[in-house]
Amino acid sequence: LNIALLAGDGIGPEVIDQAVKVSDAVAAKFGHEISWTPALTGAAAIDAVGEPYPDETHEACVAADAVLFGAIGHPRFDNDPSAKVRPEQGLLKMRQKLGLFANVRPTFTFPSLIDKSPLKRERIEGTDLVFLRELTGGIYFGKRGREDNNNTAYDTCTYTRAEVERLAKKGFEMAMQRSKKLCCVDKANVLETSRLWRETVQKLEKDYPEVEVSYEFVDAVAMRLVQWPSAYDVLITENLFGDILTDEASVISGSMGLMPSASLGEKTSLFEPIHGSYPQAAGKDIANPLATVLSAAMMFETAFGLKDEAEAIREVVNKSLAEGVVTEDLADGGKAYKTSEVGNWLS
Amino acid sequence: LNIALLAGDGIGPEVIDQAVKVSDAVAAKFGHEISWTPALTGAAAIDAVGEPYPDETHEACVAADAVLFGAIGHPRFDNDPSAKVRPEQGLLKMRQKLGLFANVRPTFTFPSLIDKSPLKRERIEGTDLVFLRELTGGIYFGKRGREDNNNTAYDTCTYTRAEVERLAKKGFEMAMQRSKKLCCVDKANVLETSRLWRETVQKLEKDYPEVEVSYEFVDAVAMRLVQWPSAYDVLITENLFGDILTDEASVISGSMGLMPSASLGEKTSLFEPIHGSYPQAAGKDIANPLATVLSAAMMFETAFGLKDEAEAIREVVNKSLAEGVVTEDLADGGKAYKTSEVGNWLS
Ligand SMILES: CC(C)[C@H](C(=O)O)[C@@H](O)C(=O)O
Ligand SMILES: CC(C)[C@H](C(=O)O)[C@@H](O)C(=O)O
Repeated sequence: LNIALLAGDGIGPEVIDQAVKVSDAVAAKFGHEISWTPALTGAAAIDAVGEPYPDETHEACVAADAVLFGAIGHPRFDNDPSAKVRPEQGLLKMRQKLGLFANVRPTFTFPSLIDKSPLKRERIEGTDLVFLRELTGGIYFGKRGREDNNNTAYDTCTYTRAEVERLAKKGFEMAMQRSKKLCCVDKANVLETSRLWRETVQKLEKDYPEVEVSYEFVDAVAMRLVQWPSAYDVLITENLFGDILTDEASVISGSMGLMPSASLGEKTSLFEPIHGSYPQAAGKDIANPLATVLSAAMMFETAFGLKDEAEAIREVVNKSLAEGVVTEDLADGGKAYKTSEVGNWLS
Repeated sequence: LNIALLAGDGIGPEVIDQAVKVSDAVAAKFGHEISWTPALTGAAAIDAVGEPYPDETHEACVAADAVLFGAIGHPRFDNDPSAKVRPEQGLLKMRQKLGLFANVRPTFTFPSLIDKSPLKRERIEGTDLVFLRELTGGIYFGKRGREDNNNTAYDTCTYTRAEVERLAKKGFEMAMQRSKKLCCVDKANVLETSRLWRETVQKLEKDYPEVEVSYEFVDAVAMRLVQWPSAYDVLITENLFGDILTDEASVISGSMGLMPSASLGEKTSLFEPIHGSYPQAAGKDIANPLATVLSAAMMFETAFGLKDEAEAIREVVNKSLAEGVVTEDLADGGKAYKTSEVGNWLS
């Protein structure tokens, strides 16, 4: 198993280290061998070579069977509007060059953590939903610029039928493997791109007659996600709506520090925790590594088809939660373990 | 006081009736006289004259000192993608033709209703925030269409510096009257229009040195609104982000059926409940009229500068809540009053 390892910025390197240990342990147990290829990305790459997603990194990703990613971003760039190169550009370039068109973002509850949610227990119990966010199109990659002496700005949101179809098909397939419920999120009462989405999904319905499809406006979903998240199962949506709604959904379970994600392309796929680079905690060995460890589990299952290996990782994570071998964010007055201690315990 | 009365569809006419009664009662008490000019809008207008925002309605609005609006929308149109005229088009046309550029959407808690929220009490206690959503620009009104044999769709988001400035100024002014905290919501790490927003707001900061401004990405705000809504006060944002976030925010307080809104223009202003036309309840005399009654209170205060009159309405609304004179959505096992009964009690 050849895996490109993009640790990135902030707490990225620390949490990635634990995922590597756990992956190596599970590989040894099941008789696989992993070859890791570390590569630079984000602010770390800007500092080293002036580019947030250098060509060598891209080549390492292309050559690998899968990519394991930490986090990128540094406050130094956020507070400097004049910065010409920003870590985020690396992220977008990476998604586009690797063709990672489908971002898979599950939100589920851990029974032992359910009371950490800002929502009431009875609202979230049983929540187990997954967003499929289109990741290489829409307003993120359309033409943008200024006109009229810099006084008018514009961004363009563009989608082709093929782009929508590709993502929607993944959504239908995922729905078939789950509860056969699919929600298409759009703003078809206003946007032409949304009407193309709706039209395309409607046409696909006949190929998946067992899947029950609902069409909901993005503003209504933003409400209902907070009201009754457990009503949803698979949701498909375009890039920007997905950005907003997946972040909203991630806090619902109260387990944001535990949520993994996958970004799938035709040729390769990438796995990363949904949390950011959390610079305030960097270097302190206190960050929660579980989202990254669970992202590695997703990698075993999705990229390599190794279900038992993935299950083994999830089991040991559940055990660590049950036995209280957790970092300070989950310690609740009990003993707070270090990032590396949790990683050691898990492997 | 000349008020154009646009009842619209679904429960619109019923809730508007109660707001009229309450307004007339308060006007009588304070020695004002209201002249109401009813006009058609929404599906009702499509049925009558084939147009969701007819010219006569526009003229009635222009001639009035303020507009009181119910709700529009009908499922008949939602489920028919081939419908050429839709009620929503009337809404957008009305906003644009009346120049209603600033949508004011407060979210606050009623102590007696706090346990109706999906969020835990300790997360929302003290929440009192207000969104200022830009309402006549952005991707709602930009160029859109199809290309490539109908296989590519596009929408354009455009903002001019003047549009941003106009909205942002209102935000700063509102912040000065409240807690002097302003949050500018954007996606400046990706969008050019967001960079124009941020740049423009940054320039205005020097005219309002007392206001403390924060800049946050829309995805982060979608999260934090659920985590700690009480951390926010005034938030300004562009049209589409405002659509999504104000709906999300409205469920936080658990009092969605009570939230009023105002849409302000240079020449006129419009007041409406944030809930929709709720067709399932139409004609049953069961809808909660309080959001519309509180919208009338906003109208007295904002459009006519009549603060005491507004306060008098809010007081009687609070009293009805305290004494349990409420519709079934708030009855909680107690007696459920009819829409008209609540209206009669309030006036
Ligand atoms: C950093 C930013 C450009 C990125 C996005 O908006 O896609 C992030 O929010 C995400 O969701 O991965
Ligand atoms: C009906 C729709 C076009 C409208 C909007 O998106 O502006 C509605 O959601 C609103 O917020 O008033």
